[in-house]
Amino acid sequence: MNQTLNQTWQERARPNRLERRIEFADYQSLRDFLDHAADLSEREGLYPDLGFGKNYLNITIHINDGDQELSQVQHQFARKLDQLLGEKTH
Amino acid sequence: MNQTLNQTWQERARPNRLERRIEFADYQSLRDFLDHAADLSEREGLYPDLGFGKNYLNITIHINDGDQELSQVQHQFARKLDQLLGEKTH
Repeated sequence: MNQTLNQTWQERARPNRLERRIEFADYQSLRDFLDHAADLSEREGLYPDLGFGKNYLNITIHINDGDQELSQVQHQFARKLDQLLGEKTH
Repeated sequence: MNQTLNQTWQERARPNRLERRIEFADYQSLRDFLDHAADLSEREGLYPDLGFGKNYLNITIHINDGDQELSQVQHQFARKLDQLLGEKTH
């Protein structure tokens, strides 16, 4: 998919979460990715916070209510988002 | 469109901007609205910051680069977003 590279995922605290910023070459590429990400959310039942403008997207994956720590659930979801971007690593 | 009501637009300063939060009854309604809003952005050439999760959307309409104050451009865009929601007032 058409995006410029970018930081990878950052683990952050208070609250514990995974964050990543992605910059896209154009708005259509960003919209395509948002559509795929929303489909993934519906399949997985996990809804990150997504913030975007014309050519950037910030993703924040929160821990489950009641949990204290990030788990495989969040990391696997992050990997699946990477795969939507055409990346194989996380 | 299927959303629960909601604050209206707020004018905020530093930087000057219009903000509105909308809560939706379900994710599909939110996705539909996002699609219409993105189409509007492409038609108008104005790209607000949009932040969303499972059932909420925060919209921030910034002033143009170089401007100091909100103008009719931002207020008209806000009205058009309201119209997408099926509302007639702003």
